[in-house]
Amino acid sequence: MKQRVQRIFSNLTDQVDAILLMNGEEPNVDLSFFYATGYESGLFEGCIAILWPEDNLEVLASSLEETTARSGDADVKVYAKKVQRAQLLKEVLKGVKRMGINGAGLTVQNLEEIKQSTPGIETVDISKAIERTRLIKDDGEVELVRKACKIASEVADDIPDFLKVGMKEYEAAAEISYRMQKKGASSPSFDTISCFGKNSAEPHHSPNGAVLRKGEFALFDFGAKYRRYCSDITRTFIADKPDKQQKEIYEIVLEAQAAGLANIRAGVNGKEVDAAARAIIRRSKTKGTMPHSLGHGLGLSVHDGGRMAPEVDLPLEANMILTVEPGIYIPGYGGVRIEDVVCVKANGCEVLTSASKELTVI
Amino acid sequence: MKQRVQRIFSNLTDQVDAILLMNGEEPNVDLSFFYATGYESGLFEGCIAILWPEDNLEVLASSLEETTARSGDADVKVYAKKVQRAQLLKEVLKGVKRMGINGAGLTVQNLEEIKQSTPGIETVDISKAIERTRLIKDDGEVELVRKACKIASEVADDIPDFLKVGMKEYEAAAEISYRMQKKGASSPSFDTISCFGKNSAEPHHSPNGAVLRKGEFALFDFGAKYRRYCSDITRTFIADKPDKQQKEIYEIVLEAQAAGLANIRAGVNGKEVDAAARAIIRRSKTKGTMPHSLGHGLGLSVHDGGRMAPEVDLPLEANMILTVEPGIYIPGYGGVRIEDVVCVKANGCEVLTSASKELTVI
Repeated sequence: MKQRVQRIFSNLTDQVDAILLMNGEEPNVDLSFFYATGYESGLFEGCIAILWPEDNLEVLASSLEETTARSGDADVKVYAKKVQRAQLLKEVLKGVKRMGINGAGLTVQNLEEIKQSTPGIETVDISKAIERTRLIKDDGEVELVRKACKIASEVADDIPDFLKVGMKEYEAAAEISYRMQKKGASSPSFDTISCFGKNSAEPHHSPNGAVLRKGEFALFDFGAKYRRYCSDITRTFIADKPDKQQKEIYEIVLEAQAAGLANIRAGVNGKEVDAAARAIIRRSKTKGTMPHSLGHGLGLSVHDGGRMAPEVDLPLEANMILTVEPGIYIPGYGGVRIEDVVCVKANGCEVLTSASKELTVI
Repeated sequence: MKQRVQRIFSNLTDQVDAILLMNGEEPNVDLSFFYATGYESGLFEGCIAILWPEDNLEVLASSLEETTARSGDADVKVYAKKVQRAQLLKEVLKGVKRMGINGAGLTVQNLEEIKQSTPGIETVDISKAIERTRLIKDDGEVELVRKACKIASEVADDIPDFLKVGMKEYEAAAEISYRMQKKGASSPSFDTISCFGKNSAEPHHSPNGAVLRKGEFALFDFGAKYRRYCSDITRTFIADKPDKQQKEIYEIVLEAQAAGLANIRAGVNGKEVDAAARAIIRRSKTKGTMPHSLGHGLGLSVHDGGRMAPEVDLPLEANMILTVEPGIYIPGYGGVRIEDVVCVKANGCEVLTSASKELTVI
């Protein structure tokens, strides 16, 4: 993981003597702690990584996590109690004057605790450098996201086998999560979105006991977590032969996605990709809109920094991993979203999710 | 949810004109936002709740979450862009001089963003008052945890039906999650811990491809999330008739748990409960130790504030919900943990998890 430490330092705009990454308690974790250390197992609540410009890495690990902590390439110091952690921190940071912290993943309370253990050290939020580093995936990361995408894609292709009229939203969500875990996912990468009929018009609907009825859209947005890395895919099905409007909405979303995909390559700005897809939805006669970005970065986190959205500058670079997920939502009626994951290349992109996008009647 | 707002204000030690709860991006969410608003659906990333001492509640909701936002009893203002959110925030907070924030659930970056939108407002970390409020559950919360516990308990009792020698850790984890979701859980409340043999000596082991072999312990620590509320249960099984040492370890852990449970009632200090259970493990001749607390608070979060641990002051009060989970771990050999969830009562406690604790041979 020393290469990652080097890359974070090389992305700094503000020089610091060391960088401190403190992982909080669930759910307030800092995934950058896991990025820097590479730990695949363990919770590491309250544990701290110190990154040094010479590319080495120290970890203050709770005794609960000792076995995993020692499996990596970090220099590990183990504590049993918070007061010991504070003492170790003071020793390790001796001589440090300016220290980077990751404001995007650190709670206000934990920063306060760090400051109390290390009086006199100035802290600087270097989260932009971390976000920038994590945006460009290394080959190991691409492989893990590829595997997570493979799992999710296979399950997406399975949906017509088990989805039936009369099924409840949460039952379908359970089936999706189960099939992903049976294929080796450690968990879903986020709570599976499973929504039927008018619920599909809510982009972040939580599945409930709603039953799939004939003629309705069934939208599933889900992903697998594989060795901490996420995938994220959306497919929309229809519980009967689609009527004219349904078919039209689906085709526009698909066309918008194709336009997005066709525009992705290193050097292009993410907002241009968003604009290309959004233009097709705007031009259409459906009454629906797309109230969200076209896509977002993906990696250790489902939203891994970086968005392709109007007014957001994101010059694309090779090895960025992004979702491309246009949608049309008509409140009270329903919605369609189609989402894939891509890895940006010099001359285009590689689509890492492979599930069928034909409008499938179940 | 206005009663919750009132209770937060009544727990303040530091007076403020208003309290701001900002929910971050996954995974850096502030569950207190959901506590105060009561929203059961939606992600609400970047959304803000403002709590007023007169017990009313305002929510600045992204347009993505408008439908759910309007389903609650808050006064809702909708924004499409961050710059609109900043403008709304400025208007809503007009006249506020001192504002409480939840430092335990707010990132350093989001606090910075709030400060930039509201120059001149002093912020005070009132997370202790929020933690204290959330520690004592209201009746609605107890019912949701009870239901989450029922789901997890039923699945724990199912384990001997599907667990077989030769099964992989992640396959068993998949089965557990699936069965919970089929019973109505929205998701597991945390990544299911499923560990066999020597892996059971690692309290936070992440399930991998390890196969259950004859004679090994199989430890499962998992919970269901039901309408955002968590359960948390651990049961340990054995893949053959236990030998003398295995039986002894199991019996000591069970005895330690019984001692813990027998000591819980309002007025007792959590550290005394921990001591009662820990003494039994210390007195035993097994070579294992218990490197963790006896238990922790449970609610919207799996670790919901409050711990029963040596040196942690936690005077128990009625309607606190806590786990009781002694364990013995012998590195390289294996471990046993038995965990239940209790609701503290005036004269004892109600155990909300009901799964069998007899040492079951699978």
